[in-house]
Amino acid sequence: MTGEANRLIYLPLGGAGEIGMNMYVYGYGPAGRERFILVDVGVTFGDMESSPGIDLIMADPAWIQARADRIDGIFITHGHEDHVGALGLLWPRLKAKVYARRFTAALAQEKMERAGHDVMEVRQADPWPHAVEAGPFRVSFVPVSHSIPESSSLLIETPAGRVLHTGDFKVDPDPIVGEAFDPETFRAIGDGGIRALICDSTNVFNDYPGRSESSLPEAIRSLIQSAEGMVVATTFASNVARLRTLAEAGRAAGRKIVVVGRAMNTMLRIAKATEVLDSFPPTIDPSDALDLPRSQLLVLATGSQGERRAASAQLASGKYMGMELKEGDLFLFSSKTIPGNEVAVARILNQLSRKGVEVVDDSSSRYHVSGHPNRPDLIAMHDLVRPDIVVPMHGEHRHLSAHAALANERGRQATIAPNGSLVELSQDGAPVVDTIETGRLYLDGSEIIGALDGVVRERIRMALRGVLVVSIIIDEKGRPLGGAWAEGLGLPEDSRLRDGLEGALESELEAVLGRTKRNVLDDDDALEELVQRTCSRVCNQAIGKKPVCKVMISRLEE
Amino acid sequence: MTGEANRLIYLPLGGAGEIGMNMYVYGYGPAGRERFILVDVGVTFGDMESSPGIDLIMADPAWIQARADRIDGIFITHGHEDHVGALGLLWPRLKAKVYARRFTAALAQEKMERAGHDVMEVRQADPWPHAVEAGPFRVSFVPVSHSIPESSSLLIETPAGRVLHTGDFKVDPDPIVGEAFDPETFRAIGDGGIRALICDSTNVFNDYPGRSESSLPEAIRSLIQSAEGMVVATTFASNVARLRTLAEAGRAAGRKIVVVGRAMNTMLRIAKATEVLDSFPPTIDPSDALDLPRSQLLVLATGSQGERRAASAQLASGKYMGMELKEGDLFLFSSKTIPGNEVAVARILNQLSRKGVEVVDDSSSRYHVSGHPNRPDLIAMHDLVRPDIVVPMHGEHRHLSAHAALANERGRQATIAPNGSLVELSQDGAPVVDTIETGRLYLDGSEIIGALDGVVRERIRMALRGVLVVSIIIDEKGRPLGGAWAEGLGLPEDSRLRDGLEGALESELEAVLGRTKRNVLDDDDALEELVQRTCSRVCNQAIGKKPVCKVMISRLEE
Repeated sequence: MTGEANRLIYLPLGGAGEIGMNMYVYGYGPAGRERFILVDVGVTFGDMESSPGIDLIMADPAWIQARADRIDGIFITHGHEDHVGALGLLWPRLKAKVYARRFTAALAQEKMERAGHDVMEVRQADPWPHAVEAGPFRVSFVPVSHSIPESSSLLIETPAGRVLHTGDFKVDPDPIVGEAFDPETFRAIGDGGIRALICDSTNVFNDYPGRSESSLPEAIRSLIQSAEGMVVATTFASNVARLRTLAEAGRAAGRKIVVVGRAMNTMLRIAKATEVLDSFPPTIDPSDALDLPRSQLLVLATGSQGERRAASAQLASGKYMGMELKEGDLFLFSSKTIPGNEVAVARILNQLSRKGVEVVDDSSSRYHVSGHPNRPDLIAMHDLVRPDIVVPMHGEHRHLSAHAALANERGRQATIAPNGSLVELSQDGAPVVDTIETGRLYLDGSEIIGALDGVVRERIRMALRGVLVVSIIIDEKGRPLGGAWAEGLGLPEDSRLRDGLEGALESELEAVLGRTKRNVLDDDDALEELVQRTCSRVCNQAIGKKPVCKVMISRLEE
Repeated sequence: MTGEANRLIYLPLGGAGEIGMNMYVYGYGPAGRERFILVDVGVTFGDMESSPGIDLIMADPAWIQARADRIDGIFITHGHEDHVGALGLLWPRLKAKVYARRFTAALAQEKMERAGHDVMEVRQADPWPHAVEAGPFRVSFVPVSHSIPESSSLLIETPAGRVLHTGDFKVDPDPIVGEAFDPETFRAIGDGGIRALICDSTNVFNDYPGRSESSLPEAIRSLIQSAEGMVVATTFASNVARLRTLAEAGRAAGRKIVVVGRAMNTMLRIAKATEVLDSFPPTIDPSDALDLPRSQLLVLATGSQGERRAASAQLASGKYMGMELKEGDLFLFSSKTIPGNEVAVARILNQLSRKGVEVVDDSSSRYHVSGHPNRPDLIAMHDLVRPDIVVPMHGEHRHLSAHAALANERGRQATIAPNGSLVELSQDGAPVVDTIETGRLYLDGSEIIGALDGVVRERIRMALRGVLVVSIIIDEKGRPLGGAWAEGLGLPEDSRLRDGLEGALESELEAVLGRTKRNVLDDDDALEELVQRTCSRVCNQAIGKKPVCKVMISRLEE
């Protein structure tokens, strides 16, 4: 028997210090020999600014992957992409049983199936007070309200104490679909003693109490009732409660419901199949909608964030499945614009304006509510659970920091733990005892690459500077054959130069190569550097830019 | 004598249907033989999403350029980049006298000088009731409040009637620096009869009366007074009034003022030289600031929009001119975030959060006011001027449309005229009588290119897909020499393929070329297409992407 102490640790690999790609590790055991569980395996989406061509971004699981034989389970709190989206892609690196509640498990199984893995690796868990035993952990799914059905906080019990990982939540006594937030449940959990509350920080800058999903139906009903032409409404595809509210408002106004966009149809199908959605007005096929007067239609469409290929964008710019918007129609954004998507959403607003379509968006706050806890809701959660310490998660650094300050102000300890902070949840506090190197992985086409591999950096350079390809052939005698050949990609043509930029480059390269000594011509690296330097100089003079230059030197053999 | 009627026309080439790159044409004379004036020659800034590598974007002046011999003057309403920024770049295509008030003229001359043109082409104009005679036009600069000193509305008088072009404005009785908005001036101008009010639409979605610049000093003073560490404040460099308010609040708190960033220093220098700024607290050099306690410093820094190279971004990420922010310091955004810049600004907020710096931003609305007219201010302007018709400008389509609806609701005629709408301002109305093709020009390095030239489209494709360069040498006998050579740029390496992606491509190309018939090998186009098809297929299979493929075929001669 050694006296080696068991410790309880928390390590965010993604989602703390950013919003998106959630991935959190909990460990219990002697330092270096802990057993682990992983909470959530999410994605975030790439953008042209920082990750052109990248389809999905995930937290790099390298640290836990190196310890994969010690993972006792992967727990998915809810079905949003930033919590479950990377499961299929990263599961081969983790290879542990996945646990989720019924609806979430069905979404997780879709991810596994699409990636070619065994869906039976995903196990359905019952809610609290039921618990999943996973190594030294007992994990319970505690129902909580959010903007997707069946979200859960996780009560994680270990011999060293209990942790409550809130997942994404809001304090909603009547979320329309799915379970309400039940203060008594959280109070009861708090009564048992909670070492640490790992808590959603998204809306810490909002000072007002969060509003219930049930505050919307009346306003939505009256808006749709008063509409005369076709009504299109968009929201987040996974907000099943909102979809039902919108559809029921349509039905009440005597309209037929059409659902367009893959994500929304998938979500409704799974919500019905798993019985989180017990009723939904009948829908009709888009092709049947074309025969109906526009005043009898309510179209629910994907694309609330301005995504170019989604149904909303297509309806705004032209036709979608035969449907076309006209003056007198109404377009409702029952959603908020996520920061970074403002320009994409404005593009749609302007297209709709050109068509003469009336647009109603979130600016009045009457047709959308957030799924995250505002400041007063955070205070309520802290007070119900009464943890020894608060560890903010699910937020950018400024959110974590403000959330920690909020806890401190009210007399609670808090630890700011961005990605890579290995926090020991001890009886005396929650110090960051180590900092782990974390990173991001990119899904690029069918490949998973490292964010720092240089692939994306090179793409950004090409986008900013253009590309110049120079081909040089060195003959059997070691002399340039027929001059250099330059071709530009993404470069302006300089009309002031005779034969254009490429001609100017070729003349200059020919002159330079003509006076280059044999030892340089013989040396690929030296020759390449000379050509690149020459190209940079000529281009900078001619067009004020230094393109990415790729030199192809072919040597003929005797 | 022919009975040919003179007409008065309005044609926006930029700024109507978008926010930025303002350029408006007015014409008077017989159709096809009008004389013209041009109002504003602005830019907007490129972004990675839609225009990677592009430094500036301008309206394409092609239509007016083709009629440049009939331009009687270029009038600049104020010194913001979106109104004067393209003057130096486009003046050679227009070659007309430029008129502006003193401070604006100094800024315009800087643009001319930097582009190598004669600064004397820019003439200084006195304000209303003085008028510039330009062909059939009499143009007066009517002082108006905005977020830069010396902004002007233009009263444009022609034999066919009078037009008021508001320029950018706000209704501010006390703008701190520069002239107040004087309702009586606008009422008097309205008394003389106004055919059309061409009117700023930026803030049409804001329902509250605009707030005065003078509502800020007290809040800013008390904020800086209560700060203990270093204070950094950022705002738009051209908001000279705000700079003075910030600097005076610093002086009142016993702090020395340091101004960092080129744009701010230039603006202050010109504002002093042209006497629009009659007083400003003394400033000290950044190097002298290093010797002072941080509690005695107020730093005014450029970069309120998160621009990567500006002083604010550098202070947030590390040091700038030796200065470094620490826990206990305060950073004030006395500015709003322009849509599209949210992510860049959030990056700075998070960097400051990591340093433990307190951030105060516009979320409280206490430290910034807008420079544009809100809905009640637009109503005030309409009612003062009482035009026959309102033509909204300076807005995206949805802003123009909402502004026109506002005019209609209150019993006024309005015409929605996005870029390219040739509007005849007749006694009976303002119909769009023609639609002119408009476009955008890009400044790319030192070159001006057309937005549709394909340069940017190719860059975006390269950024999204990566690039593959394939070099093939065909020998004297018409046969491929030594196989193909493939090199990728911005492409992931596929480790599952032997020799990587490039090796796999080369093997497949060698096999394909080996069985290719002579007539294809002899034909550059056919061979290139074959190689591209092969590369697309191999890459799509291997990495799930089809890169931009550049094929270089060299033929050896006998």
